[in-house]
Amino acid sequence: MLEPSLTVINQKSSLTETSLEMTELRVPACSSTTKNDDYLANCLSNDVFAPTDSFVRRHIGANSSEIQQMLAAIGCDSLDEMIQKTVPDAIRIKQPLDLGEARGEYELLQELKAIASQNQVWRSYIGTGYYNCITPPIIQRNILENPGWYTQYTPYQAEIAQGRLESLLNFQTMIIDLTGLEIANASLLDEGTAAAEAMTMAAGLAKNKGNKFFVSSDCHPQTIAVVKSRAIPLGIEVVIAKHDQFEFDKNYFAALLQYPASDGAIYDYSEFIAQIHAQDGLAIVAADLLALTLIKAPAEFGADIAIGSAQRFGVPFGYGGPHAAYMATKDAYKRQMPGRMIGVSKDVYGNPALRLALQTREQHIRRDKATSNICTAQVLLAIMASMYAVYHGAEGLQRIAQRVHFLTASLAKSLENLGHTVTHQTYFDTIRVELKGISSDEIKARAAAKQINLRYLEDSAIAISLDETVSKQDLTDLIDIFAGEKPINHKLPITDSQLVIPNSLIRNSPYLTHPVFNSYHSESELLRYIHRLQAKDLSLITSMIPLGSCTMKLNATSEMLPVTWAEFGNIHPFAPLEQTQGYQVLFQQLEAWLAEITGFAGVSLQPNAGSQGEYAGLLTIREYHLHRGQTNRHICLIPTSAHGTNPASAVMAGMKVVTVNCDKEGNIDVDDLKAKAEKYQHELAALMVTYPSTHGVFEEAIKDICDTIHYYGGQVYMDGANMNAQVGLCRPGDIGADVCHLNLHKTFCIPHGGGGPGMGPICVASQLVPFLPKHPFIADPDQTTISAAPWGSASILTISWVYIALMGAKGLKLATEVAILNANYMAQRLAPHYPILYTGKNGLVAHECIIDLHDCKAIAGIEVDDIAKRLMDYGFHAPTMSWPVAGTMMIEPTESESKAELDRYCDAMISIKQEVNAIASGDMDKLDNPLKNAPHTAETLLSDDWNHPYSRKQAAYPAPWLKEHKFWTSVGRIDNAFGDRNFVCSCLPLEAYET
Amino acid sequence: MLEPSLTVINQKSSLTETSLEMTELRVPACSSTTKNDDYLANCLSNDVFAPTDSFVRRHIGANSSEIQQMLAAIGCDSLDEMIQKTVPDAIRIKQPLDLGEARGEYELLQELKAIASQNQVWRSYIGTGYYNCITPPIIQRNILENPGWYTQYTPYQAEIAQGRLESLLNFQTMIIDLTGLEIANASLLDEGTAAAEAMTMAAGLAKNKGNKFFVSSDCHPQTIAVVKSRAIPLGIEVVIAKHDQFEFDKNYFAALLQYPASDGAIYDYSEFIAQIHAQDGLAIVAADLLALTLIKAPAEFGADIAIGSAQRFGVPFGYGGPHAAYMATKDAYKRQMPGRMIGVSKDVYGNPALRLALQTREQHIRRDKATSNICTAQVLLAIMASMYAVYHGAEGLQRIAQRVHFLTASLAKSLENLGHTVTHQTYFDTIRVELKGISSDEIKARAAAKQINLRYLEDSAIAISLDETVSKQDLTDLIDIFAGEKPINHKLPITDSQLVIPNSLIRNSPYLTHPVFNSYHSESELLRYIHRLQAKDLSLITSMIPLGSCTMKLNATSEMLPVTWAEFGNIHPFAPLEQTQGYQVLFQQLEAWLAEITGFAGVSLQPNAGSQGEYAGLLTIREYHLHRGQTNRHICLIPTSAHGTNPASAVMAGMKVVTVNCDKEGNIDVDDLKAKAEKYQHELAALMVTYPSTHGVFEEAIKDICDTIHYYGGQVYMDGANMNAQVGLCRPGDIGADVCHLNLHKTFCIPHGGGGPGMGPICVASQLVPFLPKHPFIADPDQTTISAAPWGSASILTISWVYIALMGAKGLKLATEVAILNANYMAQRLAPHYPILYTGKNGLVAHECIIDLHDCKAIAGIEVDDIAKRLMDYGFHAPTMSWPVAGTMMIEPTESESKAELDRYCDAMISIKQEVNAIASGDMDKLDNPLKNAPHTAETLLSDDWNHPYSRKQAAYPAPWLKEHKFWTSVGRIDNAFGDRNFVCSCLPLEAYET
Repeated sequence: MLEPSLTVINQKSSLTETSLEMTELRVPACSSTTKNDDYLANCLSNDVFAPTDSFVRRHIGANSSEIQQMLAAIGCDSLDEMIQKTVPDAIRIKQPLDLGEARGEYELLQELKAIASQNQVWRSYIGTGYYNCITPPIIQRNILENPGWYTQYTPYQAEIAQGRLESLLNFQTMIIDLTGLEIANASLLDEGTAAAEAMTMAAGLAKNKGNKFFVSSDCHPQTIAVVKSRAIPLGIEVVIAKHDQFEFDKNYFAALLQYPASDGAIYDYSEFIAQIHAQDGLAIVAADLLALTLIKAPAEFGADIAIGSAQRFGVPFGYGGPHAAYMATKDAYKRQMPGRMIGVSKDVYGNPALRLALQTREQHIRRDKATSNICTAQVLLAIMASMYAVYHGAEGLQRIAQRVHFLTASLAKSLENLGHTVTHQTYFDTIRVELKGISSDEIKARAAAKQINLRYLEDSAIAISLDETVSKQDLTDLIDIFAGEKPINHKLPITDSQLVIPNSLIRNSPYLTHPVFNSYHSESELLRYIHRLQAKDLSLITSMIPLGSCTMKLNATSEMLPVTWAEFGNIHPFAPLEQTQGYQVLFQQLEAWLAEITGFAGVSLQPNAGSQGEYAGLLTIREYHLHRGQTNRHICLIPTSAHGTNPASAVMAGMKVVTVNCDKEGNIDVDDLKAKAEKYQHELAALMVTYPSTHGVFEEAIKDICDTIHYYGGQVYMDGANMNAQVGLCRPGDIGADVCHLNLHKTFCIPHGGGGPGMGPICVASQLVPFLPKHPFIADPDQTTISAAPWGSASILTISWVYIALMGAKGLKLATEVAILNANYMAQRLAPHYPILYTGKNGLVAHECIIDLHDCKAIAGIEVDDIAKRLMDYGFHAPTMSWPVAGTMMIEPTESESKAELDRYCDAMISIKQEVNAIASGDMDKLDNPLKNAPHTAETLLSDDWNHPYSRKQAAYPAPWLKEHKFWTSVGRIDNAFGDRNFVCSCLPLEAYET
Repeated sequence: MLEPSLTVINQKSSLTETSLEMTELRVPACSSTTKNDDYLANCLSNDVFAPTDSFVRRHIGANSSEIQQMLAAIGCDSLDEMIQKTVPDAIRIKQPLDLGEARGEYELLQELKAIASQNQVWRSYIGTGYYNCITPPIIQRNILENPGWYTQYTPYQAEIAQGRLESLLNFQTMIIDLTGLEIANASLLDEGTAAAEAMTMAAGLAKNKGNKFFVSSDCHPQTIAVVKSRAIPLGIEVVIAKHDQFEFDKNYFAALLQYPASDGAIYDYSEFIAQIHAQDGLAIVAADLLALTLIKAPAEFGADIAIGSAQRFGVPFGYGGPHAAYMATKDAYKRQMPGRMIGVSKDVYGNPALRLALQTREQHIRRDKATSNICTAQVLLAIMASMYAVYHGAEGLQRIAQRVHFLTASLAKSLENLGHTVTHQTYFDTIRVELKGISSDEIKARAAAKQINLRYLEDSAIAISLDETVSKQDLTDLIDIFAGEKPINHKLPITDSQLVIPNSLIRNSPYLTHPVFNSYHSESELLRYIHRLQAKDLSLITSMIPLGSCTMKLNATSEMLPVTWAEFGNIHPFAPLEQTQGYQVLFQQLEAWLAEITGFAGVSLQPNAGSQGEYAGLLTIREYHLHRGQTNRHICLIPTSAHGTNPASAVMAGMKVVTVNCDKEGNIDVDDLKAKAEKYQHELAALMVTYPSTHGVFEEAIKDICDTIHYYGGQVYMDGANMNAQVGLCRPGDIGADVCHLNLHKTFCIPHGGGGPGMGPICVASQLVPFLPKHPFIADPDQTTISAAPWGSASILTISWVYIALMGAKGLKLATEVAILNANYMAQRLAPHYPILYTGKNGLVAHECIIDLHDCKAIAGIEVDDIAKRLMDYGFHAPTMSWPVAGTMMIEPTESESKAELDRYCDAMISIKQEVNAIASGDMDKLDNPLKNAPHTAETLLSDDWNHPYSRKQAAYPAPWLKEHKFWTSVGRIDNAFGDRNFVCSCLPLEAYET
């Protein structure tokens, strides 16, 4: 029972001169006399007028008294004591971070709005791979702005992820249909990196083993920059030319072509591709999805791989991202496909069920044998794009494409009427204009007066790309710009009966014929479809998802709101810097904060995924060594405990991986490290190390390790996956690292989006600052470019900015402390039932703990997978499975979970252990038990013949709180092997669902 | 299989002079050669550049080919033919409405944004019952902007409404706790009407039968205006004075007091209330909820009834609404409580379950015996307010209240330091300032320069009300305004140890002690609580809700988005008109459109519910007769088929109800009507008539009926409940009505919000225009005032504006036609199984149909209720039950439902009829069958002992599509009588939930 703590003391007011008796009020939060153990109040301002909507109280799950209870449970008197026992004294920072005070949500959002208003939202007809579009409001509100869609984890636990798996299968089907190819993946990061991925994929696949790669000069400039950067460390020589002035020979393993070309021309590539094939090379076509509704599919003229962006299918500009790129290819190449693929399989009852297919392709298995390091996809954005297609259907997309095309044709005609030359005779939505009687500068000035951005090419030519948002007024404004002082005819030329497309390239093949693209065209129907799918997914709106190493914390609404503000969302990535001053302020502040948090000198916000951050960090190290003339430094030391992405990234950065052993505590074997560092002292480029370790412990030797690497001339790359255990307590830069990447989608609250978007900026020490990634549209085009857009997925940087600003230095530190406390509290509760695999010297873990399940196997034949599936019956998502150690689970609760939720999860795990014990004791059957049969669908439980030795109730309601918290899985346990043997990655015909 | 309709024709381009062969493309939507039966395309612009995101396709569920299929099923060749057979020729309009063309969503939202930007969002410290507040972002996004919360119907089907019922029970508990009274209702429309409701309630309850009502002059002016208007037709004399200068005697049945007073003073009313009680009168206290966290509860000093607004608990200004008002009183008065009350009962398994309590109190039962006509509550807003309390808890609310209070005290001290006089010695958040050395006009100019609104009182005094959004900067700005040219001290006086509240009124009693207010203070916890509740509610995100007479159509996202734009949401209802030019444009356009649609001359947007519209319409008629000196006209004719609100409203408007018979077809008995009109020709005030009739038919005699009334000097009031069958086809004004109200929450897409908000504007013929409602802040204070705010719930008028603008004249007409088509299609499919009760002369119904279930009772003992509950097992909400005819269901599908959804609903109804037949034939048990036991919860179905003669599967999955569409009810069938016998309307202790 909470009683308001009012104490009435008779006392004269010092405020008024009246005779009224005034009253003193003890105010717990406002008064400056908060107790030492009032942890939450202590990290807020003690200004009496400080906002009452401070966010720290909302972000951190436990209140101060629960923090005390949990401390008592783990045998510590205070958070300070716990940290002293957990984090080595030598690396602990003694001063608070210089980040300011915790803030109120309301005032901070007002401040951000003021910053946002420094961005100018002009009409951008710049094109170059990015086009304005209409996000259907129903998709904006019910997917992009809906925590039921953006807070899910990557769909490894497929049985509780059927909703987004279906959406992604729709995405793949859409890509397959539009490109005409046989298989597609579930998205890549952006068109530039997709092109680079296609290049490395082709390098492995082509029969022709030449080391040259042809890139058409008609490709988008940023694509060329990314491909060139990616090629160098791999020893691939990129040759750029016009395809029709080029002879493709045996020295080239593949070619990249843009369709339509960057300046709008539509070329028929069939002959050129025939030539490529004749030379045993592969043809990669970067194609525009909207154009593909009217022009021939890449497969129809021989493309082996198609890539491109799905941005214009309803995803806002976002000043560069996030959007989904796509890749499609032939079935024969399925094992070389980078990224994730959704495949159809069946569940234990024989019903169709979806899951990630062919997972042995992936870098986390193949390590340094991998040709790609991609982990994240752009799931949320791919889903938006697929829903856009579901909503419009083939006819609707064609209607949009036709209108855009007719607008373009009308514009072209008008500009020709004005005397200008439209360079190309065919086009879809983009025309190249050669000016007559007016200078490019004049045009630019006239366009600026109307707040219109165009693409200013060399030779004073101008490219204009139209899109579905263009109105007749917009068209008139454009014509007016090009008319100079001439009067213009406001009657637009109507051109609706002709396509200005070569006859040979008119599309005749059908697409999006599956019922899913033909059933949900009314808003009510789409609304229900979206919500039916949502209900199949377990997300953070249901329960905690304690994924070790993935930091599934709160993605707060205040952090998410600005993402869809027009001032952040509706800006073309290549809009002039003068128009993006708000973004620049945000970038500078965020960079400064991240540098302060990590203890580094410089930051690049460009890498748009953790994998890209790793790669960018290593490339920065590579450039540093090269710049110093140390061309031999190409060895990268990587402990055996490292995540599989690390070796994959090292190989991409042109390094050779040498493995360092770990001891049985999971710590780096320092002797082995020293021996190898010494052995390779002339070739040593870098050490990649995760801190705290992937085993969930703050290694004491970390400073020594860093010193060793530096002694032998190497640089230390710190993987930021576990940064949530460091913020405010210690800093990679202080410890001795030279680079670290940050998973903003882990520590800094960008939601996982069901498997993307992510952001992976890198922070570097001063000697590395000159070698940070650049972008051709911002700086010298000959430097390293990692992502297609200068600041990666810029629009979601707002999320991390809001988080850091709201928490302030004290709030962030408290969050880290509570994250560690929560992990230790869970470890302490679970230890009697499941051994804790690794602890530090004081018996405590860092922000996550590994529980050992070997005993379950030994005594009852229960596998890790059985426990993961049984957790679904309890309404929970499993922790990380069998990583970094087989036969274990790694639990990372984060600071955002309440004690009640931690207890509920522990109760479930303990209850499951009791079920395991019952099997061991013979009280339950060894094969027919609730664990082996998990998850239980409602449909199975309701079947008339229930022949199991346990009851339906025991199957469905093994814990008392399930009455309120029940989550029903939509399919039974999925047969992964069946799906890999019978690979299908597009929508099944409806008949497949009939029983 | 959909093939893009591309036809390649070789043809020279007329566009370019090149030799490329160009291609003609047949474009179904863009070309002007659409077929006659392409109904959707025909109502769009045929401009080739018209937007491709036209809304009509999204709003109307069926596409053109499905429309054709349904027409064929009902035996019509075209929609025109169907309308000719349905709507009497005499009343059909022959010209299209003058409303413009259908629009694209994107361009229209841009246009509305431009209108919105004409509103100026100033800082408003006007108070007067409305205070700026912080809507917690999590509540904004997950409730206010979430179709899972705003699309539900009123919770009559309690088993599938437990989520919002729990939220409303939280609301009631919050009100009970804060006011200290025993019971509360689930909200009223606004503080002004709540005061008026309290007055009429007290008039019935007080032992003292005087006809005078004391209203303190310290009440808010708009409350006084509403109360005065409401009192006049009821013969109550309102006397306004200062309470401390007034002797309450036996002529007064009750008194209304404001606490704190409108100008901020906090009075101790205990002595005055003792005096009221001594005279057998009742004390009504209008209290501010935030203040009640610091000052004594009204019950603690004797209040019998407390009313007020819950707006400042997280609900935006909205230029007047919607917000929830509250009412609390003593348990003894529960049967006189107006509005809805949620009560605790139990389900068939004995578990606690919630539902509307004591429904026999309500106007729809009591008809002209009712003392209130309230139907709608402000459910969505009451839920927001209750979630605000759940999120903050007692301690958080107190923290907010204290900060606001200390800010106010600091301001007061500062202004006194500047030489001004703060009139009252005690206050909570509002001070009255008497100026020294500066004029009120100067203050106003200085405030305007800072975009600050204050309340300018008579005598040049100024009132300032602070709120939780106020920052230190705001405070400094305020002080600066009052400093004139003097320099100000920017160090604010800190007053945090004193409350400037009379000692006798400091609150000591606890509140919000229930666990629900103490468990969800972190965002993750609240997020999950909100979504757990949401999952218990069947809303339009699940399936169609074909509520006869309630028009549950699509509430499209584009319509909803502007509601939470700051330019509409953050404006105080009494902000000067100069600042609300955007709203004025919107009002004028919407009024013009509604006038055009109804065929009337004038519109009032003030009534903020359908019931208020009825009342306002009748009051307008009353004023008209009085103005013409016809003081005797007080008889209101109402057909027996009318909704119960009609007679209740008539009584409130001071009229006497005379009932007119209906024939067995449900049509008005014209002879009886004529006889009664003639009989009462000298007293006849009005006829109230619903059109099409409540029986779902366009009565042929309607023109004759209207003529008769006019002949005898009466006015015709048309109930707009069924307007969805008229829009674009016929107009009340043309038919002969003089007034009609419009349920914007039915026909014009404002969502039902689970039982509110609604809007009920009235449209009137020219002779009635002068008598439309006025508002004291806008016009002459002595005219009729219906609602507390000048334009009712202004912010949601945007919804209807967007709907009408998007649809255009043709789209609206098509919507009506398809609504009628869908009803006829369903009638046609259901007729072989359930007789259709009423049809027009061609065998067709209007936009809804009544199916007769008497046979189910006769052959199998199955009641209407059994079918309604069984529909839940099929994932559906029942249609309107036993209204207007007992033993029937009234189905209104609306135009937004797809043919697939209509078929699914019909399939469910037919499948249920087969179950009924199985009972009749003896194949199923008469008592133990799936209908009598419906709804089946998952928990019941999984119990180990299943002793029913039908299977679990039959219970849960009686239709094949349930595998994809299953909705689980959270409780079994609820025992209504138990709850009414054991009335509880606040949260149960947790122990009650333990089994």
